[in-house]
Amino acid sequence: MASCACAATIVSSPSYAIPLFTSPSSSSSSPTTTKFLTKQRWKTPLIETKTMRSKKSVVRATVSIEKETPEAERPETFLRGGDAATAAESLSVRARFEKMIREAQDSVCDAIEAADGGGKFKEDVWSRPGGGGGISRVLQDGVVWEKAGVNVSVVYGVMPPDAYRAAKGSADQKPGPVPFFAAGISSVLHPKNPHAPTLHFNYRYFETDAPKDAPGAPRQWWFGGGTDLTPAYIFEEDVKHFHSTQKRACDKFDPTFYPRFKKWCDDYFYIKHRGERRGLGGIFFDDLNDYDQEMLLSFATECANSVIPAYIPIIEKRKDTPFTDHQKAWQQLRRGRYVEFNLVYDRGTTFGLKTGGRIESILVSLPLTARWEYDHKPEEGSEEWKLLDACMNPKEWI
Amino acid sequence: MASCACAATIVSSPSYAIPLFTSPSSSSSSPTTTKFLTKQRWKTPLIETKTMRSKKSVVRATVSIEKETPEAERPETFLRGGDAATAAESLSVRARFEKMIREAQDSVCDAIEAADGGGKFKEDVWSRPGGGGGISRVLQDGVVWEKAGVNVSVVYGVMPPDAYRAAKGSADQKPGPVPFFAAGISSVLHPKNPHAPTLHFNYRYFETDAPKDAPGAPRQWWFGGGTDLTPAYIFEEDVKHFHSTQKRACDKFDPTFYPRFKKWCDDYFYIKHRGERRGLGGIFFDDLNDYDQEMLLSFATECANSVIPAYIPIIEKRKDTPFTDHQKAWQQLRRGRYVEFNLVYDRGTTFGLKTGGRIESILVSLPLTARWEYDHKPEEGSEEWKLLDACMNPKEWI
Repeated sequence: MASCACAATIVSSPSYAIPLFTSPSSSSSSPTTTKFLTKQRWKTPLIETKTMRSKKSVVRATVSIEKETPEAERPETFLRGGDAATAAESLSVRARFEKMIREAQDSVCDAIEAADGGGKFKEDVWSRPGGGGGISRVLQDGVVWEKAGVNVSVVYGVMPPDAYRAAKGSADQKPGPVPFFAAGISSVLHPKNPHAPTLHFNYRYFETDAPKDAPGAPRQWWFGGGTDLTPAYIFEEDVKHFHSTQKRACDKFDPTFYPRFKKWCDDYFYIKHRGERRGLGGIFFDDLNDYDQEMLLSFATECANSVIPAYIPIIEKRKDTPFTDHQKAWQQLRRGRYVEFNLVYDRGTTFGLKTGGRIESILVSLPLTARWEYDHKPEEGSEEWKLLDACMNPKEWI
Repeated sequence: MASCACAATIVSSPSYAIPLFTSPSSSSSSPTTTKFLTKQRWKTPLIETKTMRSKKSVVRATVSIEKETPEAERPETFLRGGDAATAAESLSVRARFEKMIREAQDSVCDAIEAADGGGKFKEDVWSRPGGGGGISRVLQDGVVWEKAGVNVSVVYGVMPPDAYRAAKGSADQKPGPVPFFAAGISSVLHPKNPHAPTLHFNYRYFETDAPKDAPGAPRQWWFGGGTDLTPAYIFEEDVKHFHSTQKRACDKFDPTFYPRFKKWCDDYFYIKHRGERRGLGGIFFDDLNDYDQEMLLSFATECANSVIPAYIPIIEKRKDTPFTDHQKAWQQLRRGRYVEFNLVYDRGTTFGLKTGGRIESILVSLPLTARWEYDHKPEEGSEEWKLLDACMNPKEWI
């Protein structure tokens, strides 16, 4: 049914795109970098020029504007060389990260289909003329989930010199185009039952090579990602289970990871105009490169592997809980907040919309339905009020 | 029920706020000006600092951050001096514009209640410590309309020097704080029946006085506004009637107005990432000051007075038309587009969200319910496809 998916889709799926251009040396997001992106001269034409909607790549615009080509079959790898890749290449971090996210996509989709007990994922495979491609999977109107999207992409190409300069934070260098590599998995799962929470996760890996005209410039890499839970009602045992699973994954690598990435998550998923987080958090990190690369690859793998044990037991417990119209309406109001966060703040979504990505893939993160009531205020002390309070005042769950 | 509404609400209701800071000499919106706004150093703290949520005004932030005070009664005028205003003051453009928008609010609300035949508007009156105030009215879950908001505001104060410099487009001047005045009416009406269209209208008037330290600087003023229709299904006679009513209002003043403002409307309500307008347009204009001031006051009045004759006959004809679940779902998908436009592009909404306005009043423009299906494509030639086609390729309706 779905026709095609473009590079920007995945480069720009929620919380996914911008890190490509952020400084790998900073450990948190930088407003300056975001400003740079919104000022890029190649940004607006992507959306406004009709020729952009053709399938031809456009010279002036790089990365995110090359339109994708639908493919009939999944390739074994999206890396250059494909099946003919050398043994050395197959051991690279790029190759192992691709393998990891594709296995994670398979296992998460299998687990979702099994728990749903009816819905099936539809798959779109696509490739980019410039290099790489992706696999988008969506299950819509299932038994348990109203909308579930699990996408992977592996893209590479050349960053414009301006973007590289901004990433390096240096105005006086004039490097040539900079080769880059970006791969990631991104997913949002919206169940129907208001007692069953929404889940989002996303893990990504970036590399930039030395610019062509500056062979001495260092090659850089970084990891980003996170997993977070968005319930409409708090079941404390569920939230504890979810956060404990995240903490266990973190603790295997560094005892500082969980507290640091838990706070980062609370800070990132903040709906400023509401003074609320969109949900009850989890972990989130970005631009991570100040640890051993192998260690971070293992850490990202551990995190991706923790999605099923963190989430599916909660779904199994809540998917058939009876609910009232009142509870459904409250879930819908919280879905409205999810829409507000994703459309107004999420860096991947807003960047994707601005750079002309495949809209359906970017906006698969939006719920099937949402609601906005004028001046709705839950009664103090009610279950709805408790959720809102925890979104306004993040709690330590373990 | 509703507690209060803040200045930014109305300064920032859809399509309302930004013109305060745009150059009055330009006849269309300027990306440069928008950039200026997003760079304002007093922007972020408004939202992120907890003290901003108190009812005290904050010295560093001007206009949009002073919190509103709820008032028990509507004052006769929000202008300084109130009842004691002199005869000369009561003849000023400010005073006559306030009178016009308040009368328009009354007549539109009366007409909506009469056509709804059940729902009643709830009213919030508020004042700003710095000067002025407003009246917010919302009818929710009526018989015909699921959500209808009609707000007026009259606010004045002092623009920061940076904002004035940006408005003047000159970097080397250093004027002191610049007194400003802004008044407007803003409304979004979402009916339940998928055959009955959503309506938005907004009319506003701005003035800046000479800066305190530059007595020779000219006083400037400008008008902005528009009325546009967003149906889920096209009834050609309805759209013709709507556009003809707008054209008649325009033609009384200048034969170039309708074609120019019709195109401006199609350009403004453009959802770039979809390549679609949110609806079937109407008229839109901004920064209008290159005509006689009295003529433009009469024109804005004529436009505001055209809302009822343009819209209510369509509602009367369509409000009870039987509809299917399929038609309701399509309306909900189009409501999703409305949400996308307002949260991602509408200058008033995005400015309001960033500057800490009263969220419930700003977001009263959002529909009660909305829907996003993955990769939904109406069947070619269907009624849904015809609407989409008209949103992608604006038509001449008369």
